[in-house]
Amino acid sequence: MKRKQRTFTDYKDLGFSDKVSNQAGRAINKDGTFNIRKHGLKFLEHYSFFHALLTIRWWKFLVIVLTTYFVLNIVFASLYMITGFENLTGMAQGSFWEHYLEAFFFSTQTFTTVGYGRVNPVGLMGNVVASFESLVGLMCFALATGILYGRFSRPVEKFIYSENLLVAPFKDHTALMFRLANAKNNVLSNVQIEIMLSISEKENETFYRKFYELTLERKRVNFLTLSWTVVHPMDEDSPLYRFSEQDFKEADVELLILINGYDDTYGQNVHARHSYKYNEFIWNAKFTPMFKRSEDEQYTILELDKISDFQLIG
Amino acid sequence: MKRKQRTFTDYKDLGFSDKVSNQAGRAINKDGTFNIRKHGLKFLEHYSFFHALLTIRWWKFLVIVLTTYFVLNIVFASLYMITGFENLTGMAQGSFWEHYLEAFFFSTQTFTTVGYGRVNPVGLMGNVVASFESLVGLMCFALATGILYGRFSRPVEKFIYSENLLVAPFKDHTALMFRLANAKNNVLSNVQIEIMLSISEKENETFYRKFYELTLERKRVNFLTLSWTVVHPMDEDSPLYRFSEQDFKEADVELLILINGYDDTYGQNVHARHSYKYNEFIWNAKFTPMFKRSEDEQYTILELDKISDFQLIG
Amino acid sequence: MKRKQRTFTDYKDLGFSDKVSNQAGRAINKDGTFNIRKHGLKFLEHYSFFHALLTIRWWKFLVIVLTTYFVLNIVFASLYMITGFENLTGMAQGSFWEHYLEAFFFSTQTFTTVGYGRVNPVGLMGNVVASFESLVGLMCFALATGILYGRFSRPVEKFIYSENLLVAPFKDHTALMFRLANAKNNVLSNVQIEIMLSISEKENETFYRKFYELTLERKRVNFLTLSWTVVHPMDEDSPLYRFSEQDFKEADVELLILINGYDDTYGQNVHARHSYKYNEFIWNAKFTPMFKRSEDEQYTILELDKISDFQLIG
Amino acid sequence: MKRKQRTFTDYKDLGFSDKVSNQAGRAINKDGTFNIRKHGLKFLEHYSFFHALLTIRWWKFLVIVLTTYFVLNIVFASLYMITGFENLTGMAQGSFWEHYLEAFFFSTQTFTTVGYGRVNPVGLMGNVVASFESLVGLMCFALATGILYGRFSRPVEKFIYSENLLVAPFKDHTALMFRLANAKNNVLSNVQIEIMLSISEKENETFYRKFYELTLERKRVNFLTLSWTVVHPMDEDSPLYRFSEQDFKEADVELLILINGYDDTYGQNVHARHSYKYNEFIWNAKFTPMFKRSEDEQYTILELDKISDFQLIG
Repeated sequence: MKRKQRTFTDYKDLGFSDKVSNQAGRAINKDGTFNIRKHGLKFLEHYSFFHALLTIRWWKFLVIVLTTYFVLNIVFASLYMITGFENLTGMAQGSFWEHYLEAFFFSTQTFTTVGYGRVNPVGLMGNVVASFESLVGLMCFALATGILYGRFSRPVEKFIYSENLLVAPFKDHTALMFRLANAKNNVLSNVQIEIMLSISEKENETFYRKFYELTLERKRVNFLTLSWTVVHPMDEDSPLYRFSEQDFKEADVELLILINGYDDTYGQNVHARHSYKYNEFIWNAKFTPMFKRSEDEQYTILELDKISDFQLIG
Repeated sequence: MKRKQRTFTDYKDLGFSDKVSNQAGRAINKDGTFNIRKHGLKFLEHYSFFHALLTIRWWKFLVIVLTTYFVLNIVFASLYMITGFENLTGMAQGSFWEHYLEAFFFSTQTFTTVGYGRVNPVGLMGNVVASFESLVGLMCFALATGILYGRFSRPVEKFIYSENLLVAPFKDHTALMFRLANAKNNVLSNVQIEIMLSISEKENETFYRKFYELTLERKRVNFLTLSWTVVHPMDEDSPLYRFSEQDFKEADVELLILINGYDDTYGQNVHARHSYKYNEFIWNAKFTPMFKRSEDEQYTILELDKISDFQLIG
Repeated sequence: MKRKQRTFTDYKDLGFSDKVSNQAGRAINKDGTFNIRKHGLKFLEHYSFFHALLTIRWWKFLVIVLTTYFVLNIVFASLYMITGFENLTGMAQGSFWEHYLEAFFFSTQTFTTVGYGRVNPVGLMGNVVASFESLVGLMCFALATGILYGRFSRPVEKFIYSENLLVAPFKDHTALMFRLANAKNNVLSNVQIEIMLSISEKENETFYRKFYELTLERKRVNFLTLSWTVVHPMDEDSPLYRFSEQDFKEADVELLILINGYDDTYGQNVHARHSYKYNEFIWNAKFTPMFKRSEDEQYTILELDKISDFQLIG
Repeated sequence: MKRKQRTFTDYKDLGFSDKVSNQAGRAINKDGTFNIRKHGLKFLEHYSFFHALLTIRWWKFLVIVLTTYFVLNIVFASLYMITGFENLTGMAQGSFWEHYLEAFFFSTQTFTTVGYGRVNPVGLMGNVVASFESLVGLMCFALATGILYGRFSRPVEKFIYSENLLVAPFKDHTALMFRLANAKNNVLSNVQIEIMLSISEKENETFYRKFYELTLERKRVNFLTLSWTVVHPMDEDSPLYRFSEQDFKEADVELLILINGYDDTYGQNVHARHSYKYNEFIWNAKFTPMFKRSEDEQYTILELDKISDFQLIG
């Protein structure tokens, strides 16, 4: 085996330090996030609630909305209680808890500005609390409007990737190949891919993790409409030249996939990350086609569920 | 006829596989969408409702809004029925259906937070449903606000194209020409055009569809204020060098037009696609002018309805 | 006088046809709009109401909002009249017009969802109209929210320019100079300028208008924080080499200024256009300084009202 | 000491005039704003309230919202007073001030469109004011919605920088080094840095302030995930070649740091500025590591509170 020497131009900084001690876990998780945590600042200083509310799953978002609504109305019902239920007219006769319940529902009517008016504030303090609550309610819904718009208008690129990376003969060499497609119907243009090789190398008896950019047979497509099989030829110029299956394992190889493109529908740039570790490599296999013509020969069908399908060679 | 050999640099990936079996239909439809469908994922996984609501026509959007409003109020009226009409005070005497109708309209008053209050909830369950409905109503209108803003703020580039592509003498050669203009009054700057040739070529007795980028006499204008006649000279460097009308037909030629520019008004990039098939070509014709000076010589008039006008050449 | 020959590379398309017959008016108006009108499509097809509402002046916008509000309430009041005032309970006794007036104000209460409820709908048709009106009202305010956000979030670059363009000695040559500054406090970065020369040239006994890009001593600044004096040296490479005051007039010279930059505050690209005609040129003059240090020497003061100040030379 | 001669290509305009008289204060303040003020236009012409409302601190924003709410309701309560309290029905018996108070709270109910309806307008003028107020209220909340969305959706890059700039041996030379990191959890990609040297130079017996761009060992990272130590080698090509501590002081050296990158989370470009003056330089020191592996070796921990930590060298 001949391993290529690292040259300065090969190297490309991925935002990791260039010489980190050898590490076990992934650099990029399967969901595209970096495997890094930040300490040393107070939680609030590097946490963005708005960001969180934009990106959490829908059911969590709805639970937060409902919980906030419930808690705020409890708070305001308690304020009406503290200022005295006599500040609210129109309440039915009843026990303390029945009054509290009426105050709670009066609070919801004020918060949402529905304001039926059967129960309504008369005294000074009741009016002060109610006018403040209706302001708070409107600001909360102003906020919710923004968040909902933000959630929906974020580019929702959903790239799907072949489960495995295939190692197969390609022209005169061996090549690494994986396949990706855009699962959504929005049009992605000017899609570009970079692959970073994360590899453990020995230097002065110590193992260091280093990063190289791998050359690709093609690194840009005008439109990602069908599937794209990304190919890195392991030729003389590749840092992986003549690597065997065992070499990949020993060097703890991870490929970091960086994708960017332009989303025509949302008018925004999209970015995605993915990674393959050596144990997700399949040797001597090739992908089977994942698109075909429709029966009437009028359009092309892309079969997204076949993206990981491959067949072993010889 | 001499047909140029495909070289690697000529080739430009359009997101189609580079060697697809010869196909009959268009690659890009006249409205700029790709002639491709995606299968294999559940409908919801590659469908974006928000995207759909942004791009459907106005009358469909309004029908959806009205239908949603009607259906949701039916649902909530039924909830008031289930929890018992006695939970709502102020209803007039009447039959079951009259009560249901009053509950329906009470629901609309709650949903829109208009809350007149003649009818209003008294019991626990009536209040629970009503306070939930007003929350749902506000969230729906938050959503509608975002969608309306999204609909209006999307760049509404409307390029218009000459109906035909003309093949005419140009300098020492023949050239392909078509004409486009911006039908809207917004200012488009830095407008660039790429033309992809989709052509059927024979290789080892099989016909394959291949794609080439065509060179243009000019591929960028600073501002698209008047019309732009895009010209591809069919010279020695063109894959269409010395093609005859019959050659275009046999090779099932389609030209894919890719346009991008910057919309000053909306501050966004705009993209458009168009295509011409060989049967939309007119031989030996040239475009007639589509702009003139105003009578008082003070401004230029662009006559958009003349964009397809041409005259045959001797 | 020696006039430089037009070469192909000099030429830069400004979106005007390259050979237009000689014209009198400006190509770009003082406010940066193009002096072009589009005919041939129906008005609505190339008019964007949303765009108009984003860009009209504030008082016009407010007049439109108030008028729309008034007209819509007239419409709905009339609908309540048509369906019968008996569909609204709680109205005071009175004449037809008093009823109509009450219906009008009931309509405003429904449209804005304030819904006091003294007057409220009872019959079927009254309820149908009212529930429809509250929906319309909410959609209108959703729209208004979007438009207000759009109005405020548009980059409001406000470049100010020296009133005149100065022609003065510069190094070994004569040069054209004008001055601009950002009147707003937002930070503009990566600001670039292009100057297009629009000139009337004789060819085969006919005058044609042609466009050249002029080279600038500096065409980009990292930040536009102070004023920027833009300089075109009229050297051997300039199409204006050795032009006299009379030459400028005869050639009906207009300089088109194209500016773009990035607005840090709004996170958007900004574009601006300006123009100078030959009769706005001042010969043998230079700009006087428009910034100074504060008295405590701690910061720099940019005096925007001095941007046009110049002094004659010799 | 040998000081390099300024050449034209070295020079890079920072938006300051290229030859300004020597000045004492900083060019860029520690918070990244420019140390410049604009005079000569009326305040409103170069002040943007919307911009201010987007960027002021939260507590100021909330104070403005509450104050505006209070003041507007005072205004409308006074209008109800002027048009006569008899235009409002349902008010309790009481003194003038009790009526005014009721009018004030009725105003809040109208402004927020909560509209309980116990107090409600009857006469013409009361209705006119109320229907106008509810319109104003909705427009205000439309505005607030936009501002809240704008506040949250602005990229909130928060770069943190080492307190000092270190001067230390680097390869064969001395180098300037500082360290930065992204304190937030959002992913920044394609981060680029430029360093401008602001230096006082003698020319014809006068001191002028000049600006040079400094070359960096690395000026771009794909992702800013960990810390980044930015290094300027003071080699033969540097305008700071062989500068001593005394030279830095005499030349009143300030380094202006310009950072830009792309925020994956918000889909926007981010820009930041920072500066170091000569008195913030530490000689013969190097930074100590600020990241480590987690105990389970599964992820990397970035310790943001250690960003300024350094140790002196021999």
